[in-house]
Amino acid sequence: MKGKVYIVGAGPGDPELITLKGFKILQEADVILYDRLVSKELLVYAKPEAIKIYVGKEPGRHSYTQDEINRMLVEYASKGYKVLRLKGGDPYIFGRGEEECIYVRRHGIDCEVIPGISSIQAASISSGSPLTSRGYASSFAVFTGVEDPTKGFKSVDPAKIASSVDTVVILMGVSKAREIISEIIKVRGEDTPASVVMNASTESERIFRGSLKEVLKYVEEGHVKPPAVFIIGDTVRLSRYILGEE
Amino acid sequence: MKGKVYIVGAGPGDPELITLKGFKILQEADVILYDRLVSKELLVYAKPEAIKIYVGKEPGRHSYTQDEINRMLVEYASKGYKVLRLKGGDPYIFGRGEEECIYVRRHGIDCEVIPGISSIQAASISSGSPLTSRGYASSFAVFTGVEDPTKGFKSVDPAKIASSVDTVVILMGVSKAREIISEIIKVRGEDTPASVVMNASTESERIFRGSLKEVLKYVEEGHVKPPAVFIIGDTVRLSRYILGEE
Repeated sequence: MKGKVYIVGAGPGDPELITLKGFKILQEADVILYDRLVSKELLVYAKPEAIKIYVGKEPGRHSYTQDEINRMLVEYASKGYKVLRLKGGDPYIFGRGEEECIYVRRHGIDCEVIPGISSIQAASISSGSPLTSRGYASSFAVFTGVEDPTKGFKSVDPAKIASSVDTVVILMGVSKAREIISEIIKVRGEDTPASVVMNASTESERIFRGSLKEVLKYVEEGHVKPPAVFIIGDTVRLSRYILGEE
Repeated sequence: MKGKVYIVGAGPGDPELITLKGFKILQEADVILYDRLVSKELLVYAKPEAIKIYVGKEPGRHSYTQDEINRMLVEYASKGYKVLRLKGGDPYIFGRGEEECIYVRRHGIDCEVIPGISSIQAASISSGSPLTSRGYASSFAVFTGVEDPTKGFKSVDPAKIASSVDTVVILMGVSKAREIISEIIKVRGEDTPASVVMNASTESERIFRGSLKEVLKYVEEGHVKPPAVFIIGDTVRLSRYILGEE
């Protein structure tokens, strides 16, 4: 009998932010392929005999290519195993869950995808910066600062996005942050409030809040390290009340 | 001793999509104020002696005003209770969690917010329509079709949003869907693929997929009932592979 592949969002870092559904699959899985941003504390709940394979990408360490990961998923499921692909965040928000699911399906294996709390949501909660709020924001946009170079076209125009929605969220934007924030300042003004959250929901979480001008300076001084989420817009003004600072 | 208020996202409907953290608070809460879109199956896990108060809004039924809800949160927490405010989706994505948190803080009560899986994410998973995907989409925007009429200005311009991001997501847009989709067709074309997901992740989930032209017809024929999520963009093309239809 063929096994099945479960592509599960483990959440942003805090092991308790996985869903009950994802947690149950973790407890029953025969094989677990997990990413770098998945909390190691979660793996304690796997069956003792489960095969656990670290497939995260880290500088200076051998890592599996996407092709190798895809092949392992199919190989283990073909043996009848219950295979868990545990990913940071949400599989369909910059998670590439769809690529693995499509590969697995093409090889005749059943695939189920379970959502996860994105680092966007964790950053919003931690920094007291709601993505929407009555009277402040009824729309938000999310984009990455690191586009796929093989895509052949540039679809992200930060200034255009920032002038069409209320709240602007940038993911994985550290290397391009200076350029992106400068562009957004042109259309939203340097006094627009913003939050920067690094390692959202983990023990090494760090938060900076200020005007876009101050955020730009913070970036230029090299304080922002990945993974980081930028939240820009008027809802950030609520943070001091939400966080009980006044 | 003063109690505390926990504002928790219960997820989109499937009771297993609550986070472990939210679930633990549910098991320990003394008082639970819950919304209409929260699964009743979850409440089974509350302490038997917990006070459970339904505060959802339903046509033709008495419902609590936001002021009454706010006051109850403060009143119960002031008595030393662990108070759980259980909301559908994510508290900071059209969830108004921040309003309740600010009110509670202003009355000297501690408040913690826990994220939840949004119906946006559930709709994306169920319909096989990733919000982003390499080569298809590196940005997405979310807006509501029902803006706060007291806001005094119209900040959502669907055509402008649709021409600045790859994937467009509309929440609570049923009453305005015809108008909004017509505007998006003007800038993205009537052949752009789209998914409509009603009651995402629940037993009454219904999904329609087609071109924007077909979605418009589906809306005009009155098939779309709230709560519904619209996902528009090229990633929807992946759905037939993701869902294993070919």
